[in-house]
Amino acid sequence: MTLALDAAAQDLLFREARTANAFTDEPVTEEQVQAIYDLVKYAPTAFNQQPLRVVLVRSPEARQRLVGHLMEGNQAKTAAAPLTAILAVDHEFHEELPRLMPFVPDLKDTFFAERPVRERVGSFNATLQAGYFILGVRAAGLAAGPMTGYDADGINKDFFPEGDHAVLTVVNIGRPAENAWFPERLPRLSYDEAVTTV
Amino acid sequence: MTLALDAAAQDLLFREARTANAFTDEPVTEEQVQAIYDLVKYAPTAFNQQPLRVVLVRSPEARQRLVGHLMEGNQAKTAAAPLTAILAVDHEFHEELPRLMPFVPDLKDTFFAERPVRERVGSFNATLQAGYFILGVRAAGLAAGPMTGYDADGINKDFFPEGDHAVLTVVNIGRPAENAWFPERLPRLSYDEAVTTV
Repeated sequence: MTLALDAAAQDLLFREARTANAFTDEPVTEEQVQAIYDLVKYAPTAFNQQPLRVVLVRSPEARQRLVGHLMEGNQAKTAAAPLTAILAVDHEFHEELPRLMPFVPDLKDTFFAERPVRERVGSFNATLQAGYFILGVRAAGLAAGPMTGYDADGINKDFFPEGDHAVLTVVNIGRPAENAWFPERLPRLSYDEAVTTV
Repeated sequence: MTLALDAAAQDLLFREARTANAFTDEPVTEEQVQAIYDLVKYAPTAFNQQPLRVVLVRSPEARQRLVGHLMEGNQAKTAAAPLTAILAVDHEFHEELPRLMPFVPDLKDTFFAERPVRERVGSFNATLQAGYFILGVRAAGLAAGPMTGYDADGINKDFFPEGDHAVLTVVNIGRPAENAWFPERLPRLSYDEAVTTV
């Protein structure tokens, strides 16, 4: 046992979990999303900045608008998913820093005063959080179907008209259907291909 | 029990895990890093592209070079950590796509033919993988200390002189020392602050 994480948890989060393209009709409840968030919120970000914002697209009207911004191959599965979430970065995350990182009270007005810095650093840290969130969906016993095939400008203008957020990925969430993925898993790079020692 | 992940695993990965700034002398073995990689490699990336590359900085000479590129506040803890890893994106990840995504054999020469596209998409997906990797370190019962305070150009020129990789974060890894973190955990945004419904 080289890993401390138990085998069932390894399977749930990594080894048996798959990206889902089809879901059952079982709803994803507010309670489930809150449990996911209240777990993954603890994973680290630089300066504790937590720039990820999640938009749960629940109303039929909002779902229809979102689907219209997706590439054709992503439309039908998203229209049918129990829940779809827009994961976005808040470029104004620095407003919360005096509370989130009280040991460095001037961060908001110094290092993060300029928007281009916030866009670069915020996108990196919100993307780390997107990775945590995808694993959090799996921790709830659900499957995630993250997508990047969409018109980002269209989503941003439609869902974030104030211009302060930018979409990072759109994630379908639900209980996987029987035909949720291809039987064979795609290959992964070997350890020696991805990891080197100097 | 809203979550399927057992409570011990929740604690190990999220609730009790903390970003460590000090470590014991216990070495981090090759076997441990391989177990971490062979777990987190299964988490998803777009088109199965897997652009993350990990450089384990083990030799005293390489460690000294790396420390020289860090901000002063990160130098001493990195010089003393059992293991430090550079997490980087490979901008030439598309070369592996015909093998990694055989269903779309022309991706390498169409969508990913241009380097600016690879830099943008690769950085996003490698950053998702960096998030998975940080949780994988915790899955091994170790603590991670990710850092972004460094001269990125200096690290890139020094460790990736061919210009095909870019550092995303530098992570200290080891068994946390008694004084590894401040007693009080920094606050997290509440569910209602981070998640909205439309």
